[in-house]
Amino acid sequence: MKDFFKVAAPVEVLAVIEQFEPLSSEIVPTTDALGRVLAEEVLSPVDLPDFERATMDGFAVRASDTTGASESSAIQFDFVGEVRMGEVPGFGIDRGQAAKIPTGGMLPKGADAVVMDEYSSFADARTVQIARGAAPWESVVRIGQDIRRGEKILSAGDVLRPQELGALCGLGITSVPARRKPRVAILATGDEVVDPAETPKPGQIRDINRFTLSALTAAAGGVPVSLGIIGDDPAALEAAVRGAHRDHDVVLMSGGSSMGQRDHSVEIIDSLGEPGVLIHGVSIKPGKPLIMGRVGPKAVIGVPGHPVSNMMVFQVFLKPLLHRLQGRRPDAEAIWAEAALSRNLPSASGREDYIRVRLDRTEDGLLAHPVLGSSSMISTMVKADGFIIVGVDSEGLVQGERVRVHSF
Amino acid sequence: MKDFFKVAAPVEVLAVIEQFEPLSSEIVPTTDALGRVLAEEVLSPVDLPDFERATMDGFAVRASDTTGASESSAIQFDFVGEVRMGEVPGFGIDRGQAAKIPTGGMLPKGADAVVMDEYSSFADARTVQIARGAAPWESVVRIGQDIRRGEKILSAGDVLRPQELGALCGLGITSVPARRKPRVAILATGDEVVDPAETPKPGQIRDINRFTLSALTAAAGGVPVSLGIIGDDPAALEAAVRGAHRDHDVVLMSGGSSMGQRDHSVEIIDSLGEPGVLIHGVSIKPGKPLIMGRVGPKAVIGVPGHPVSNMMVFQVFLKPLLHRLQGRRPDAEAIWAEAALSRNLPSASGREDYIRVRLDRTEDGLLAHPVLGSSSMISTMVKADGFIIVGVDSEGLVQGERVRVHSF
Repeated sequence: MKDFFKVAAPVEVLAVIEQFEPLSSEIVPTTDALGRVLAEEVLSPVDLPDFERATMDGFAVRASDTTGASESSAIQFDFVGEVRMGEVPGFGIDRGQAAKIPTGGMLPKGADAVVMDEYSSFADARTVQIARGAAPWESVVRIGQDIRRGEKILSAGDVLRPQELGALCGLGITSVPARRKPRVAILATGDEVVDPAETPKPGQIRDINRFTLSALTAAAGGVPVSLGIIGDDPAALEAAVRGAHRDHDVVLMSGGSSMGQRDHSVEIIDSLGEPGVLIHGVSIKPGKPLIMGRVGPKAVIGVPGHPVSNMMVFQVFLKPLLHRLQGRRPDAEAIWAEAALSRNLPSASGREDYIRVRLDRTEDGLLAHPVLGSSSMISTMVKADGFIIVGVDSEGLVQGERVRVHSF
Repeated sequence: MKDFFKVAAPVEVLAVIEQFEPLSSEIVPTTDALGRVLAEEVLSPVDLPDFERATMDGFAVRASDTTGASESSAIQFDFVGEVRMGEVPGFGIDRGQAAKIPTGGMLPKGADAVVMDEYSSFADARTVQIARGAAPWESVVRIGQDIRRGEKILSAGDVLRPQELGALCGLGITSVPARRKPRVAILATGDEVVDPAETPKPGQIRDINRFTLSALTAAAGGVPVSLGIIGDDPAALEAAVRGAHRDHDVVLMSGGSSMGQRDHSVEIIDSLGEPGVLIHGVSIKPGKPLIMGRVGPKAVIGVPGHPVSNMMVFQVFLKPLLHRLQGRRPDAEAIWAEAALSRNLPSASGREDYIRVRLDRTEDGLLAHPVLGSSSMISTMVKADGFIIVGVDSEGLVQGERVRVHSF
């Protein structure tokens, strides 16, 4: 068997990804920052809440006054007033006194607990009955109990989810420093590729990869910029890649899986600048023909043309690259799914295999069925819920083995 | 203990959600349809591919001519030409003939297999050596092997992921019928709530929920429309809700957790039309004060004001509602995470508990640590990776028990 190029191990590709530095940061309105990555840590400028706040409807009292109160021996308190939402109470609480307070209301001075409505009521217009003892600070959120002034609430590299946006708004932080979103140029290559709106001539096919790559790029936090279809004319391809490289952070040349096309891609990347091509082929299946280059701070990548190879290479290497450019902390991948494998799965040692799987829920948990078929078949990706990885050193997996499923 | 309202079981809320019908459909360009839900099934108008296609670089031959070929006894073939990408070969393959073909090239007439480059080479300019036998249709994708003409490739209710967009483009389907995205009006209520850009006076707090709800709505496929902060003035609230109901598919009144505010919300919803309020309180924690109404085909909802309750009610009920309005198939939730619980977790029977958890990776898999703290504290959501559900009939979970983690 001939060896056409010295293929890299997957870990070598990940090491190349670590050569890239996060992009510059920019100030983004908090309300537009869903999914963005923080460039700096965030300290709270205020206490949240900045007043003692009731968490229940009820009566504000001194906790020590309620000792011994129960359904059968309620204790009577003098009613001194009602707390109004959003206002400072115009009275305090002395021994034996109670004030009506709504959820979210400010605790009057002197009070240190709220007895919820279920255990408190008016005996008459001036008297409140309390039928349960309250611990100090019961049904109260204290000053800074949610978030303290000066507390670090978020770190550089954190991804902003809905709750982070909410917390930032609650602290009055209306804009945040976030990493710039990587601009990703996507070029389809190949004389056989036509636009989906066209009718292919015999021997031609409609473009698939430009659209999967665009959607995957957007989902990974990048800004996809489709630059259309470039034929196999070397001069046209070089001109297109050169322009794309100038204006974008990442250039994806999709397609060109034949050896001649790969050689072109390598020459073009090397001509753009140093260090040029760093990876030419990876010991993975599918996705082996991946070409990865770095030109200064920018990535120029030849993505294999088979639609499955194209998407898998994105999932395994290009998504981590886009995350890296956004300064996202290495994915703790805190949530993953585990499934039992439905059948034996042989694999060649020395190669990392990505196996598409369809999941079934069963009594015993998830069952992962391998979806078979050539990596040229997009339908296999439509049938799959995710994929599993068979490691470089593995010679295969056996039926019933627990596998980790990466979701698409 | 007094019973303030007859609370519903969580299954009753889900039954109310099923009263809503999917929204109308609209035609969407395929390239804009990421995350959209199909309103109709999709049949393929064409065969993909529509010609026999090489999946490897190599030589196209008749498979039967290669029988017995091996590294030690290669078989020689007459070279008849080279297939060019995207073109119909100008020659056919007879017995004993071979043609050079690139990955993706069209198989010449008469050929029924490709022998990959690793096992084939030129002996001289007119002679090809084949060093391995090929099975019929080896390294070839046949006509319609990926997707057959007339084949159902997607169903009504399917969510379009990157691979579905790619498949549609590959079939020349440049627009699809998708359900309209639900328009969701979001109003913050309460005299104590101020905009994040303002400095709260004593007793006031900055708005959190409008921003978490907006982000959650967008992530669930809806279009959030923030209508600002409405005070507790009943006439102003009623006017705002009435206008919001007219122009949107869903109205979320966020806040108003005190009993007086809840009563207002109920009156307003009932005044809008039939059937009005269907759920007033749910046996869940947090989130008990949820109010859910239906007015004709539209939903009008009072979302509890504590930030954690607000988000949890969204996750458990409002996300399914938005999915329902989009006609999304009930979530198979094919992928979930399982973890071991780090500690005992008591729970009241007769109530469904939603417990925020932080996840740790360990040698033995994921460990779920409950994040404790009042539902008024947004910081607990920032610390959490997801949540677990303790069922209505459960009296709690024990340390080490396997739990399903729902990701935020």
